[in-house]
Amino acid sequence: MPEQITLYTSETCPWAQKTRIALAEAKPFGAKWTEFEVDLKNKPDFYAKTVNPASKVPAITYGGPAVPPDQPSPESIKIAESAVLVEFIADLFPQSNLLPQDPVLRAKIRFFIDVATTKFVPGWFQFTFKGASPDALYAAAEQVQELLDPEGPWFAGEQFTIADVSIAPFIERLCVNLQNDVVANPGEGSKVFKELSEAPRFARFAKYARAILGRPSVSGTTPHVSPIVLINIGLTLY
Amino acid sequence: MPEQITLYTSETCPWAQKTRIALAEAKPFGAKWTEFEVDLKNKPDFYAKTVNPASKVPAITYGGPAVPPDQPSPESIKIAESAVLVEFIADLFPQSNLLPQDPVLRAKIRFFIDVATTKFVPGWFQFTFKGASPDALYAAAEQVQELLDPEGPWFAGEQFTIADVSIAPFIERLCVNLQNDVVANPGEGSKVFKELSEAPRFARFAKYARAILGRPSVSGTTPHVSPIVLINIGLTLY
Ligand SMILES: [Ca+2]
Repeated sequence: MPEQITLYTSETCPWAQKTRIALAEAKPFGAKWTEFEVDLKNKPDFYAKTVNPASKVPAITYGGPAVPPDQPSPESIKIAESAVLVEFIADLFPQSNLLPQDPVLRAKIRFFIDVATTKFVPGWFQFTFKGASPDALYAAAEQVQELLDPEGPWFAGEQFTIADVSIAPFIERLCVNLQNDVVANPGEGSKVFKELSEAPRFARFAKYARAILGRPSVSGTTPHVSPIVLINIGLTLY
Repeated sequence: MPEQITLYTSETCPWAQKTRIALAEAKPFGAKWTEFEVDLKNKPDFYAKTVNPASKVPAITYGGPAVPPDQPSPESIKIAESAVLVEFIADLFPQSNLLPQDPVLRAKIRFFIDVATTKFVPGWFQFTFKGASPDALYAAAEQVQELLDPEGPWFAGEQFTIADVSIAPFIERLCVNLQNDVVANPGEGSKVFKELSEAPRFARFAKYARAILGRPSVSGTTPHVSPIVLINIGLTLY
């Protein structure tokens, strides 16, 4: 049986949301955890000293005695980096099937996560925050949809996996900012939203995005802030 | 029993060497594979078309019928990205213990790989190829050694894992170029070599580097080219 899990997170951080989605998916399979909200603009002193020297969220303390989250025990294991944490949660709760056992499927899932991280996230960030042309975002969305199971609903078909976990917060934020046209170049957001959601060339991506937005683990961990706040936070923190 | 493995590689590519080290480590546990050398300056037409659309090494074809490597079967699975391939090899040959089963140790291994990839590799590259100050390299070497098992010889102690696989080609290239003072700023290489190999503050790192260089899977996959060639190839390809 897994030991205590304390997740240090921040409501608006998409990387932290990955771990919250993974834990929510593992909940029916026994996951229990405590969440501690880190104020990213005013981080508590104990955090870098005793949890994550890099001072970023997400991080997890695992095991050790029961302690208040703001007084972490030296006996607990400290783990950081969202991609590491998502695989850790999948490993702790194998019955969740968040990372199925077949080596080929695992490799396909990890390749998809690499594309999400190195293509889709920069495409989203540069268009939404920096006013770049949407071309890199379109190319990434095309690469994403080519890798998806043809019927879905998820990357790997019927089974929701860490592939879906790892792209979900970015699809969700992209949709919120596009739909509200809150992007670096106002006017462009609505155009790109129409293209990604209605153009036949993005039909598989649009269907996948709708499925992701409707997944309870995703909708239940979505930040309760306006798209303007998301942009402002992104520009100061990333 | 795993199916056929064809590795598309290039002798001088450190990312491809990761997969060659992993396969060499898995050989006593049943790994059999065919290697195809891709000429990075003159890639064969079939490669991007039928193996890796990104046209980079390493890549693997897995399964399908027995075919010549330059005529890959449409029936084989195609997998790319060195980090994905190294985990794939560990998954295919679990008895190699390249990625042990304990979830906490797996997370520590993956965190170390993240540090190697996002700190050590850029530190090595910027100093060796671009003439940057060695400060980022020193900081990375310190972070690496703080994460190592105190006694070693390997990251995880007695067991050689994908943590060691993932940093080995970069430690090996760093050592070759420093020792021969073949770096962007001649003179600086010898100084940094002396510091990393003799300074008490880098004692644990130096011991680890020596262990890595002596591992047969590493020395057996080291490119047979001069450090000048390594620099020239690096500058044109990365
Ligand atoms: Ca299907």
